[in-house]
Amino acid sequence: MKSPHTSPPSARGPADHEVRDQIVAAATEHFSHYGYEKTTVSDLAKAIGFSKAYIYKFFESKQAIGEMICANCLREIEADVRAAVDATGRPPEKLRRMFKAIVDASLRLFFQDRKLYEIAASAAGEHWQATVAYEERIQNLLQDVVQQGRLSGDFERKTPLDETAKAIYLVMRPYLHPLQLQYNIENAEEAPAQLSSLVLRSLSP
Amino acid sequence: MKSPHTSPPSARGPADHEVRDQIVAAATEHFSHYGYEKTTVSDLAKAIGFSKAYIYKFFESKQAIGEMICANCLREIEADVRAAVDATGRPPEKLRRMFKAIVDASLRLFFQDRKLYEIAASAAGEHWQATVAYEERIQNLLQDVVQQGRLSGDFERKTPLDETAKAIYLVMRPYLHPLQLQYNIENAEEAPAQLSSLVLRSLSP
Repeated sequence: MKSPHTSPPSARGPADHEVRDQIVAAATEHFSHYGYEKTTVSDLAKAIGFSKAYIYKFFESKQAIGEMICANCLREIEADVRAAVDATGRPPEKLRRMFKAIVDASLRLFFQDRKLYEIAASAAGEHWQATVAYEERIQNLLQDVVQQGRLSGDFERKTPLDETAKAIYLVMRPYLHPLQLQYNIENAEEAPAQLSSLVLRSLSP
Repeated sequence: MKSPHTSPPSARGPADHEVRDQIVAAATEHFSHYGYEKTTVSDLAKAIGFSKAYIYKFFESKQAIGEMICANCLREIEADVRAAVDATGRPPEKLRRMFKAIVDASLRLFFQDRKLYEIAASAAGEHWQATVAYEERIQNLLQDVVQQGRLSGDFERKTPLDETAKAIYLVMRPYLHPLQLQYNIENAEEAPAQLSSLVLRSLSP
Protein backbone atom coordinates (compact mmCIF):
# COMPACT_ATOMS: atom_id res chain seq x y z
CA MET A 1 0.00 0.00 0.00
CA LYS A 2 1.17 3.48 -0.84
CA SER A 3 1.44 6.11 1.88
CA PRO A 4 -0.39 9.36 1.00
CA HIS A 5 2.83 11.30 1.70
CA THR A 6 4.85 9.48 -0.92
CA SER A 7 5.67 11.37 -4.07
CA PRO A 8 4.86 9.55 -7.33
CA PRO A 9 7.80 7.40 -8.44
CA SER A 10 9.80 8.86 -11.30
CA ALA A 11 10.23 6.74 -14.39
CA ARG A 12 13.66 5.59 -13.22
CA GLY A 13 13.27 5.86 -9.43
CA PRO A 14 12.82 2.80 -7.23
CA ALA A 15 9.30 1.68 -6.34
CA ASP A 16 8.07 2.44 -2.80
CA HIS A 17 8.31 -1.14 -1.66
CA GLU A 18 11.92 -1.26 -2.78
CA VAL A 19 12.79 1.81 -0.70
CA ARG A 20 10.95 0.34 2.28
CA ASP A 21 12.91 -2.88 1.88
CA GLN A 22 16.18 -0.91 1.65
CA ILE A 23 15.39 1.00 4.84
CA VAL A 24 14.42 -2.21 6.64
CA ALA A 25 17.59 -3.99 5.49
CA ALA A 26 19.80 -1.08 6.56
CA ALA A 27 17.95 -0.73 9.87
CA THR A 28 18.27 -4.48 10.54
CA GLU A 29 22.02 -4.19 10.01
CA HIS A 30 22.24 -1.10 12.23
CA PHE A 31 20.07 -2.44 15.07
CA SER A 32 21.93 -5.75 15.07
CA HIS A 33 25.12 -3.85 15.92
CA TYR A 34 23.88 -1.01 18.11
CA GLY A 35 20.65 -2.35 19.56
CA TYR A 36 17.07 -1.26 19.09
CA GLU A 37 16.12 0.41 22.35
CA LYS A 38 18.96 2.97 22.36
CA THR A 39 18.80 3.95 18.67
CA THR A 40 16.65 6.91 17.59
CA VAL A 41 15.30 7.52 14.08
CA SER A 42 17.87 10.36 13.80
CA ASP A 43 20.75 7.96 14.61
CA LEU A 44 19.36 5.54 12.09
CA ALA A 45 18.98 8.20 9.38
CA LYS A 46 22.57 9.36 9.89
CA ALA A 47 23.90 5.81 9.84
CA ILE A 48 22.13 4.71 6.69
CA GLY A 49 22.56 7.97 4.79
CA PHE A 50 18.92 8.97 4.33
CA SER A 51 17.36 12.11 5.77
CA LYS A 52 15.07 11.67 8.76
CA ALA A 53 12.23 13.22 6.72
CA TYR A 54 12.77 10.67 3.96
CA ILE A 55 12.53 7.77 6.44
CA TYR A 56 9.36 9.26 7.89
CA LYS A 57 7.86 9.24 4.41
CA PHE A 58 7.90 5.45 4.57
CA PHE A 59 7.59 4.62 8.26
CA GLU A 60 5.62 6.59 10.81
CA SER A 61 7.92 5.66 13.74
CA LYS A 62 10.89 3.59 14.85
CA GLN A 63 8.41 1.01 16.10
CA ALA A 64 6.98 0.67 12.57
CA ILE A 65 10.48 -0.23 11.32
CA GLY A 66 10.99 -2.53 14.30
CA GLU A 67 7.68 -4.25 13.57
CA MET A 68 8.78 -4.94 10.02
CA ILE A 69 12.12 -6.38 11.16
CA CYS A 70 10.37 -8.42 13.81
CA ALA A 71 7.83 -9.70 11.29
CA ASN A 72 10.72 -10.79 9.03
CA CYS A 73 12.45 -12.66 11.90
CA LEU A 74 9.22 -14.39 12.88
CA ARG A 75 8.55 -15.33 9.24
CA GLU A 76 11.98 -16.99 9.15
CA ILE A 77 11.23 -18.94 12.33
CA GLU A 78 7.83 -19.90 10.96
CA ALA A 79 9.39 -21.07 7.67
CA ASP A 80 11.76 -23.33 9.66
CA VAL A 81 8.87 -24.69 11.69
CA ARG A 82 6.72 -25.38 8.61
CA ALA A 83 9.65 -27.07 6.84
CA ALA A 84 10.17 -29.32 9.88
CA VAL A 85 6.47 -30.23 9.97
CA ASP A 86 6.36 -30.91 6.21
CA ALA A 87 9.49 -33.09 6.31
CA THR A 88 7.55 -36.05 7.67
CA GLY A 89 4.15 -37.54 6.89
CA ARG A 90 3.37 -38.97 10.32
CA PRO A 91 1.41 -36.60 12.59
CA PRO A 92 3.08 -37.70 15.90
CA GLU A 93 6.49 -37.06 14.34
CA LYS A 94 5.24 -33.73 12.91
CA LEU A 95 4.35 -32.66 16.42
CA ARG A 96 7.76 -33.63 17.83
CA ARG A 97 9.58 -31.83 15.04
CA MET A 98 7.38 -28.77 15.33
CA PHE A 99 8.23 -28.41 19.02
CA LYS A 100 11.95 -28.96 18.42
CA ALA A 101 12.05 -26.51 15.49
CA ILE A 102 10.33 -23.80 17.53
CA VAL A 103 12.87 -24.11 20.32
CA ASP A 104 15.88 -24.37 17.98
CA ALA A 105 14.86 -21.42 15.81
CA SER A 106 13.98 -19.22 18.78
CA LEU A 107 17.27 -20.04 20.52
CA ARG A 108 19.19 -19.28 17.34
CA LEU A 109 17.59 -15.84 17.25
CA PHE A 110 18.32 -15.44 20.95
CA PHE A 111 22.00 -16.34 20.81
CA GLN A 112 23.11 -15.34 17.31
CA ASP A 113 21.17 -12.13 16.86
CA ARG A 114 21.04 -10.93 20.40
CA LYS A 115 20.31 -7.34 19.35
CA LEU A 116 17.47 -8.39 17.07
CA TYR A 117 16.15 -10.58 19.86
CA GLU A 118 15.78 -7.33 21.79
CA ILE A 119 13.29 -6.17 19.12
CA ALA A 120 11.33 -9.41 19.31
CA ALA A 121 11.29 -9.07 23.10
CA SER A 122 9.89 -5.51 22.89
CA ALA A 123 7.39 -6.79 20.38
CA ALA A 124 6.20 -9.62 22.58
CA GLY A 125 6.08 -7.41 25.66
CA GLU A 126 3.99 -4.78 23.90
CA HIS A 127 1.72 -7.15 21.91
CA TRP A 128 2.80 -5.88 18.52
CA GLN A 129 0.65 -6.95 15.60
CA ALA A 130 3.53 -9.01 14.15
CA THR A 131 3.81 -11.26 17.22
CA VAL A 132 0.08 -11.59 17.72
CA ALA A 133 -0.25 -12.71 14.08
CA TYR A 134 2.73 -15.08 14.48
CA GLU A 135 1.22 -16.71 17.55
CA GLU A 136 -2.06 -17.15 15.67
CA ARG A 137 -0.37 -18.78 12.68
CA ILE A 138 1.54 -21.18 14.95
CA GLN A 139 -1.73 -22.06 16.71
CA ASN A 140 -3.41 -22.74 13.36
CA LEU A 141 -0.50 -24.91 12.22
CA LEU A 142 -0.73 -26.85 15.47
CA GLN A 143 -4.47 -27.36 15.07
CA ASP A 144 -3.88 -28.65 11.51
CA VAL A 145 -1.34 -31.19 12.76
CA VAL A 146 -3.71 -32.39 15.50
CA GLN A 147 -6.54 -32.69 12.99
CA GLN A 148 -4.32 -34.70 10.59
CA GLY A 149 -3.48 -37.05 13.47
CA ARG A 150 -7.17 -37.50 14.23
CA LEU A 151 -7.91 -38.37 10.62
CA SER A 152 -4.98 -40.81 10.45
CA GLY A 153 -6.14 -42.49 13.65
CA ASP A 154 -2.96 -41.60 15.57
CA PHE A 155 -4.71 -39.20 17.96
CA GLU A 156 -7.84 -39.48 20.13
CA ARG A 157 -11.00 -37.68 18.96
CA LYS A 158 -13.06 -37.39 22.13
CA THR A 159 -11.71 -34.03 23.31
CA PRO A 160 -12.95 -31.02 21.29
CA LEU A 161 -10.31 -30.11 18.69
CA ASP A 162 -9.92 -26.49 19.76
CA GLU A 163 -9.54 -27.49 23.43
CA THR A 164 -6.78 -29.96 22.55
CA ALA A 165 -4.96 -27.51 20.29
CA LYS A 166 -5.22 -24.66 22.80
CA ALA A 167 -3.79 -26.76 25.64
CA ILE A 168 -0.86 -27.98 23.53
CA TYR A 169 -0.21 -24.41 22.49
CA LEU A 170 -0.06 -23.38 26.17
CA VAL A 171 2.58 -26.09 26.71
CA MET A 172 4.68 -24.76 23.81
CA ARG A 173 4.23 -21.05 24.46
CA PRO A 174 6.97 -20.57 27.10
CA TYR A 175 9.48 -21.70 24.45
CA LEU A 176 8.33 -19.48 21.62
CA HIS A 177 7.68 -16.35 23.62
CA PRO A 178 10.96 -14.38 23.50
CA LEU A 179 10.68 -12.93 26.99
CA GLN A 180 9.91 -16.27 28.57
CA LEU A 181 12.46 -18.26 26.61
CA GLN A 182 15.31 -16.63 28.52
CA TYR A 183 14.09 -18.31 31.72
CA ASN A 184 13.86 -21.71 30.06
CA ILE A 185 17.25 -21.87 28.40
CA GLU A 186 18.61 -24.34 30.92
CA ASN A 187 15.75 -26.69 30.01
CA ALA A 188 15.78 -25.92 26.28
CA GLU A 189 17.91 -28.92 25.37
CA GLU A 190 15.70 -31.59 26.87
CA ALA A 191 12.34 -29.86 27.27
CA PRO A 192 11.08 -30.27 23.66
CA ALA A 193 11.50 -34.06 23.80
CA GLN A 194 10.06 -34.42 27.31
CA LEU A 195 7.10 -32.17 26.61
CA SER A 196 6.41 -33.70 23.18
CA SER A 197 6.30 -37.15 24.79
CA LEU A 198 3.86 -35.93 27.42
CA VAL A 199 1.69 -34.26 24.76
CA LEU A 200 1.74 -37.41 22.59
CA ARG A 201 0.70 -39.54 25.58
CA SER A 202 -2.21 -37.10 26.09
CA LEU A 203 -3.21 -37.59 22.43
CA SER A 204 -3.18 -41.37 22.37
CA PRO A 205 -6.54 -42.80 21.25
CA MET B 1 23.22 -21.64 63.48
CA LYS B 2 25.05 -18.94 65.34
CA SER B 3 27.24 -16.47 63.48
CA PRO B 4 30.81 -16.20 64.89
CA HIS B 5 30.28 -12.43 65.29
CA THR B 6 27.32 -12.81 67.60
CA SER B 7 27.92 -11.92 71.25
CA PRO B 8 26.67 -14.46 73.80
CA PRO B 9 23.06 -13.73 74.79
CA SER B 10 22.67 -12.11 78.17
CA ALA B 11 20.47 -13.83 80.71
CA ARG B 12 17.55 -11.54 79.95
CA GLY B 13 18.22 -10.66 76.28
CA PRO B 14 16.26 -12.18 73.39
CA ALA B 15 17.64 -15.32 71.73
CA ASP B 16 19.42 -14.88 68.38
CA HIS B 17 16.61 -16.44 66.39
CA GLU B 18 14.14 -14.03 67.97
CA VAL B 19 16.24 -11.04 66.89
CA ARG B 20 16.57 -12.50 63.40
CA ASP B 21 12.81 -12.95 63.21
CA GLN B 22 12.30 -9.35 64.41
CA ILE B 23 14.65 -8.03 61.74
CA VAL B 24 12.98 -10.14 59.04
CA ALA B 25 9.50 -9.02 60.13
CA ALA B 26 10.53 -5.34 60.14
CA ALA B 27 12.34 -5.71 56.80
CA THR B 28 9.31 -7.44 55.23
CA GLU B 29 7.14 -4.52 56.33
CA HIS B 30 9.70 -1.99 55.04
CA PHE B 31 10.34 -3.68 51.68
CA SER B 32 6.63 -4.16 51.09
CA HIS B 33 6.24 -0.36 51.18
CA TYR B 34 9.47 0.87 49.66
CA GLY B 35 10.62 -2.01 47.47
CA TYR B 36 13.60 -4.27 47.76
CA GLU B 37 15.91 -3.17 44.95
CA LYS B 38 16.11 0.48 45.97
CA THR B 39 16.51 -0.04 49.72
CA THR B 40 20.02 -0.29 51.24
CA VAL B 41 20.90 -1.92 54.57
CA SER B 42 21.49 1.63 55.92
CA ASP B 43 17.95 2.69 54.92
CA LEU B 44 16.60 -0.44 56.51
CA ALA B 45 18.58 0.07 59.73
CA LYS B 46 17.33 3.66 60.04
CA ALA B 47 13.75 2.64 59.31
CA ILE B 48 13.57 -0.20 61.82
CA GLY B 49 15.61 1.51 64.55
CA PHE B 50 18.58 -0.86 64.75
CA SER B 51 22.17 0.12 63.98
CA LYS B 52 23.60 -1.11 60.71
CA ALA B 53 26.31 -2.95 62.68
CA TYR B 54 23.67 -4.72 64.72
CA ILE B 55 21.87 -5.92 61.58
CA TYR B 56 25.17 -7.14 60.14
CA LYS B 57 25.65 -9.23 63.29
CA PHE B 58 22.70 -11.32 62.16
CA PHE B 59 22.71 -11.07 58.36
CA GLU B 60 25.76 -10.79 56.18
CA SER B 61 23.97 -8.78 53.45
CA LYS B 62 20.68 -7.39 52.24
CA GLN B 63 20.36 -10.46 50.05
CA ALA B 64 20.54 -12.69 53.14
CA ILE B 65 17.52 -10.83 54.56
CA GLY B 66 15.79 -10.97 51.18
CA GLU B 67 16.40 -14.72 50.99
CA MET B 68 14.76 -15.19 54.37
CA ILE B 69 11.71 -13.12 53.35
CA CYS B 70 11.53 -14.96 50.05
CA ALA B 71 11.80 -18.33 51.80
CA ASN B 72 8.89 -17.30 54.07
CA CYS B 73 6.73 -16.28 51.07
CA LEU B 74 7.49 -19.52 49.26
CA ARG B 75 6.71 -21.53 52.42
CA GLU B 76 3.31 -19.85 52.52
CA ILE B 77 2.63 -20.72 48.88
CA GLU B 78 3.81 -24.26 49.50
CA ALA B 79 1.54 -24.59 52.55
CA ASP B 80 -1.43 -23.53 50.38
CA VAL B 81 -0.44 -26.02 47.69
CA ARG B 82 -0.05 -28.88 50.19
CA ALA B 83 -3.39 -28.05 51.83
CA ALA B 84 -5.06 -28.14 48.39
CA VAL B 85 -3.48 -31.53 47.59
CA ASP B 86 -4.41 -32.96 51.01
CA ALA B 87 -8.03 -31.78 50.75
CA THR B 88 -8.95 -34.64 48.42
CA GLY B 89 -8.11 -38.34 48.36
CA ARG B 90 -8.31 -38.85 44.59
CA PRO B 91 -4.97 -38.43 42.78
CA PRO B 92 -6.43 -36.89 39.57
CA GLU B 93 -8.23 -34.29 41.65
CA LYS B 94 -5.06 -33.73 43.72
CA LEU B 95 -3.25 -32.88 40.53
CA ARG B 96 -5.92 -30.44 39.37
CA ARG B 97 -6.00 -28.71 42.74
CA MET B 98 -2.22 -28.58 42.95
CA PHE B 99 -2.01 -26.76 39.64
CA LYS B 100 -4.79 -24.35 40.55
CA ALA B 101 -3.33 -23.62 43.99
CA ILE B 102 0.10 -22.86 42.52
CA VAL B 103 -1.36 -20.34 40.09
CA ASP B 104 -3.71 -18.77 42.66
CA ALA B 105 -1.07 -18.43 45.37
CA SER B 106 1.55 -17.08 42.95
CA LEU B 107 -0.90 -14.55 41.52
CA ARG B 108 -1.89 -13.44 45.01
CA LEU B 109 1.76 -12.73 45.77
CA PHE B 110 2.07 -10.97 42.43
CA PHE B 111 -0.93 -8.68 42.82
CA GLN B 112 -1.27 -8.16 46.57
CA ASP B 113 2.36 -7.93 47.59
CA ARG B 114 3.82 -6.39 44.50
CA LYS B 115 6.93 -5.17 46.34
CA LEU B 116 7.57 -8.58 47.89
CA TYR B 117 7.06 -10.14 44.49
CA GLU B 118 10.05 -8.05 43.40
CA ILE B 119 12.14 -10.00 45.94
CA ALA B 120 10.87 -13.33 44.67
CA ALA B 121 11.64 -12.18 41.12
CA SER B 122 15.24 -11.28 42.04
CA ALA B 123 15.49 -14.60 43.81
CA ALA B 124 14.30 -16.58 40.82
CA GLY B 125 16.48 -14.60 38.42
CA GLU B 126 19.59 -15.19 40.51
CA HIS B 127 18.89 -18.80 41.51
CA TRP B 128 18.77 -18.13 45.23
CA GLN B 129 18.91 -21.15 47.47
CA ALA B 130 15.35 -20.51 48.69
CA THR B 131 13.81 -20.77 45.20
CA VAL B 132 15.93 -23.74 44.17
CA ALA B 133 14.80 -25.57 47.32
CA TYR B 134 11.17 -24.53 46.71
CA GLU B 135 11.23 -25.84 43.15
CA GLU B 136 12.67 -29.13 44.43
CA ARG B 137 9.98 -29.52 47.09
CA ILE B 138 7.22 -28.83 44.53
CA GLN B 139 8.78 -31.43 42.19
CA ASN B 140 8.86 -33.96 45.01
CA LEU B 141 5.25 -33.27 45.92
CA LEU B 142 4.29 -33.72 42.28
CA GLN B 143 6.15 -37.01 42.06
CA ASP B 144 4.34 -38.23 45.20
CA VAL B 145 0.95 -37.40 43.67
CA VAL B 146 1.84 -39.21 40.44
CA GLN B 147 3.04 -42.24 42.42
CA GLN B 148 -0.21 -42.28 44.46
CA GLY B 149 -2.18 -42.24 41.21
CA ARG B 150 -0.14 -45.16 39.89
CA LEU B 151 -0.82 -47.17 43.04
CA SER B 152 -4.55 -46.35 42.95
CA GLY B 153 -4.73 -47.41 39.29
CA ASP B 154 -5.77 -43.92 38.11
CA PHE B 155 -2.51 -43.29 36.19
CA GLU B 156 -0.52 -45.31 33.66
CA ARG B 157 2.68 -47.00 34.86
CA LYS B 158 4.60 -47.63 31.62
CA THR B 159 6.51 -44.34 31.53
CA PRO B 160 9.35 -44.08 34.08
CA LEU B 161 8.08 -42.18 37.14
CA ASP B 162 10.81 -39.54 37.09
CA GLU B 163 10.25 -38.86 33.38
CA THR B 164 6.52 -38.37 33.93
CA ALA B 165 7.00 -36.13 36.96
CA LYS B 166 9.70 -34.04 35.25
CA ALA B 167 7.55 -33.40 32.18
CA ILE B 168 4.51 -32.38 34.25
CA TYR B 169 6.76 -30.09 36.25
CA LEU B 170 7.92 -28.43 33.01
CA VAL B 171 4.26 -27.80 32.13
CA MET B 172 3.62 -26.16 35.54
CA ARG B 173 6.86 -24.20 35.82
CA PRO B 174 5.87 -21.12 33.76
CA TYR B 175 3.11 -20.51 36.32
CA LEU B 176 5.20 -20.86 39.47
CA HIS B 177 8.29 -19.05 38.25
CA PRO B 178 7.76 -15.39 39.31
CA LEU B 179 9.51 -13.88 36.30
CA GLN B 180 7.57 -15.99 33.82
CA LEU B 181 4.21 -15.69 35.53
CA GLN B 182 3.95 -12.03 34.47
CA TYR B 183 3.82 -13.12 30.82
CA ASN B 184 1.11 -15.70 31.50
CA ILE B 185 -1.32 -13.57 33.47
CA GLU B 186 -3.77 -13.27 30.60
CA ASN B 187 -3.93 -17.09 30.51
CA ALA B 188 -3.82 -17.58 34.28
CA GLU B 189 -7.58 -17.90 34.65
CA GLU B 190 -8.11 -20.77 32.24
CA ALA B 191 -4.63 -22.28 31.87
CA PRO B 192 -4.62 -24.42 35.06
CA ALA B 193 -7.82 -26.23 34.01
CA GLN B 194 -6.76 -26.65 30.37
CA LEU B 195 -3.26 -27.84 31.23
CA SER B 196 -4.46 -30.13 34.03
CA SER B 197 -6.86 -31.78 31.59
CA LEU B 198 -4.06 -32.29 29.07
CA VAL B 199 -1.78 -33.71 31.77
CA LEU B 200 -4.53 -36.03 33.04
CA ARG B 201 -5.17 -37.29 29.50
CA SER B 202 -1.41 -38.01 29.27
CA LEU B 203 -1.62 -40.01 32.52
CA SER B 204 -4.59 -42.19 31.61
CA PRO B 205 -3.75 -45.91 31.88
